[in-house]
Amino acid sequence: MTQIKIPKLAPMLSVRNGAKAVDFCKSAFGARELFRIEAPDGAVVAQLAVGESEFWIADESPKHLNFSPESLSGATTRFVLVVEDPDAAFQKALKAGAKSVSPVQNHEYGWRQGRVVDPFGHHWEIGKPIS
Amino acid sequence: MTQIKIPKLAPMLSVRNGAKAVDFCKSAFGARELFRIEAPDGAVVAQLAVGESEFWIADESPKHLNFSPESLSGATTRFVLVVEDPDAAFQKALKAGAKSVSPVQNHEYGWRQGRVVDPFGHHWEIGKPIS
Repeated sequence: MTQIKIPKLAPMLSVRNGAKAVDFCKSAFGARELFRIEAPDGAVVAQLAVGESEFWIADESPKHLNFSPESLSGATTRFVLVVEDPDAAFQKALKAGAKSVSPVQNHEYGWRQGRVVDPFGHHWEIGKPIS
Repeated sequence: MTQIKIPKLAPMLSVRNGAKAVDFCKSAFGARELFRIEAPDGAVVAQLAVGESEFWIADESPKHLNFSPESLSGATTRFVLVVEDPDAAFQKALKAGAKSVSPVQNHEYGWRQGRVVDPFGHHWEIGKPIS
């Protein structure tokens, strides 16, 4: 566990096959693993970070109201990933197994940004403000 | 827009009635509003922060694959809110309109934590590691 600076907030993404999703986040986004609990059945709860931004990946558990995008056929939260080079980061995510939802382009709201969906159904907007 | 320290990652929560959801996050969690765009129809995209943790609230747009928990009857991401006083923060969230999913209690994984669902269908785990 990293040092706790509070209050703080971190999303926990529900997925099917959490162990693979952790590997994906490392390959696609350069995420670091901070902590992991693994159950005998292989289900994981893992704490990751991109830069100083922490997030969690956990196997879904519908009886505990934790649903994967695959179970609900959609996602209720997307993730805004701000990077120095959106074009390179987008390509890296595709190479790791994500699929393009919309290519990297300049948007009228002042960001250069693209969107991918990962193999687990979560959506990531990769970009940065246009300076 | 706050200063960009990159890479960084922030969740964007899809909801129905984004403007009310922003107000809720302020009352329930003491969130600060950093930035807001409002469309003529009242739809918002708002950047908030709890401590140094940023997140976004946006009105859903199913045609853009941004679904609220109300549309999907469940949520694919939950939020881990780490606070100094979980019991007080839990009560504050309830007072703001959240409903208890499980009360604040000590868990075998070493956290004192409770869970609420907000009026928009997103789930929040409020707690801290037991020292």
